[in-house]
Amino acid sequence: MEQSSTSAQTLITAYPVSNYNFGAKAAKLEKDRSTQERLSRMEDKYRREGIRRSVEAVILVHDHNHPHVLLLQLGSAFFKLPGGRLRPGEDDREGLRRKLTTQLSPEAASLAFSWDVADCIGIYWRPNFDVSMYPYLPAHITRPKEVKKIFLVPLPEKCYLAIPRNFKIVAVPLFDLYENSSRYGAILASLPGLLSRFRLTLA
Amino acid sequence: MEQSSTSAQTLITAYPVSNYNFGAKAAKLEKDRSTQERLSRMEDKYRREGIRRSVEAVILVHDHNHPHVLLLQLGSAFFKLPGGRLRPGEDDREGLRRKLTTQLSPEAASLAFSWDVADCIGIYWRPNFDVSMYPYLPAHITRPKEVKKIFLVPLPEKCYLAIPRNFKIVAVPLFDLYENSSRYGAILASLPGLLSRFRLTLA
Ligand SMILES: [Zn+2]
Ligand SMILES: [Zn+2]
Ligand SMILES: [Zn+2]
Ligand SMILES: [Zn+2]
Repeated sequence: MEQSSTSAQTLITAYPVSNYNFGAKAAKLEKDRSTQERLSRMEDKYRREGIRRSVEAVILVHDHNHPHVLLLQLGSAFFKLPGGRLRPGEDDREGLRRKLTTQLSPEAASLAFSWDVADCIGIYWRPNFDVSMYPYLPAHITRPKEVKKIFLVPLPEKCYLAIPRNFKIVAVPLFDLYENSSRYGAILASLPGLLSRFRLTLA
Repeated sequence: MEQSSTSAQTLITAYPVSNYNFGAKAAKLEKDRSTQERLSRMEDKYRREGIRRSVEAVILVHDHNHPHVLLLQLGSAFFKLPGGRLRPGEDDREGLRRKLTTQLSPEAASLAFSWDVADCIGIYWRPNFDVSMYPYLPAHITRPKEVKKIFLVPLPEKCYLAIPRNFKIVAVPLFDLYENSSRYGAILASLPGLLSRFRLTLA
């Protein structure tokens, strides 16, 4: 096993949410109108391309000195991390930068910045064509349907983010995610634990 | 933020539980007979020494090809990771090696091996003198009562482990810990998520 030479923790710097400007851009077509539609589209794609590889970004800011995670909100109760499906053969980090550009980057070249994809903090597996995902490949599953990698993505100190009009962006405090899988699902509820090993600086 | 240059995951190798011999040694006095006793002893010590720093080890084995975590069991329903309290000023990894030697090492010099303390995978905070711990320092807590760091500890391929007679050692599969905080508590239930970013080889 690779071993850290000291107990030093990796640093993450989060800036105040007020450092960021959030604007709107054209709506991004949602391909599915229901979870069932989404799962059956996933099944079709699996037959053609094999395992779905997806990547998501944990972007931290702080507000009144508490760390918050940026989530995209669709409708009133569905929250998700920015990110999505990789193309066949696409590199994890390159694919995540492509997704972040589509979902969050401003369209004006003068406001552009480049996305910095840092540590992988967690990996979840979908064994079947249903909504359950697990942080391990469950027993006797040899052909998982999806693997999702979650990366830390530090923002520049200040920037402009443009959100497709059919989404909202919300900054949710870690304490609201923690042990709250009934509202956010198991993956988002696990983020405080996955982030706990980092030393977070609220700049 | 420190950035990994590739998507390569850190490897962990887990060996079959049958590679290990588990023996017994003299009982290790439990200082407290109840949670209440434990919390009030913690409060006394806090007044003298300040924040309690504790360290714990996640030791992985596999059984019928599923990863398992070694837990110490006291009585019928209390499970804990090996580890415990650091001495004032003691280094995290050095203190954890000391605790593992007391709790798990055989006494015969011929069977001795040295403990290898690898990555920190999670950090939990106790804001008050009660049982709640969180993977972040909760809002407005300036004087936390305990900080607990959890480390991965790879075992040698084969070895002999000696367990104090008043404890049992059990190997619990990750799938049994996952989302099972009602049985194991929030920290043990979070271990599958904390381990998910590693590439686990079942040797
Ligand atoms: Zn807030
Ligand atoms: Zn506050
Ligand atoms: Zn088992
Ligand atoms: Zn099995």
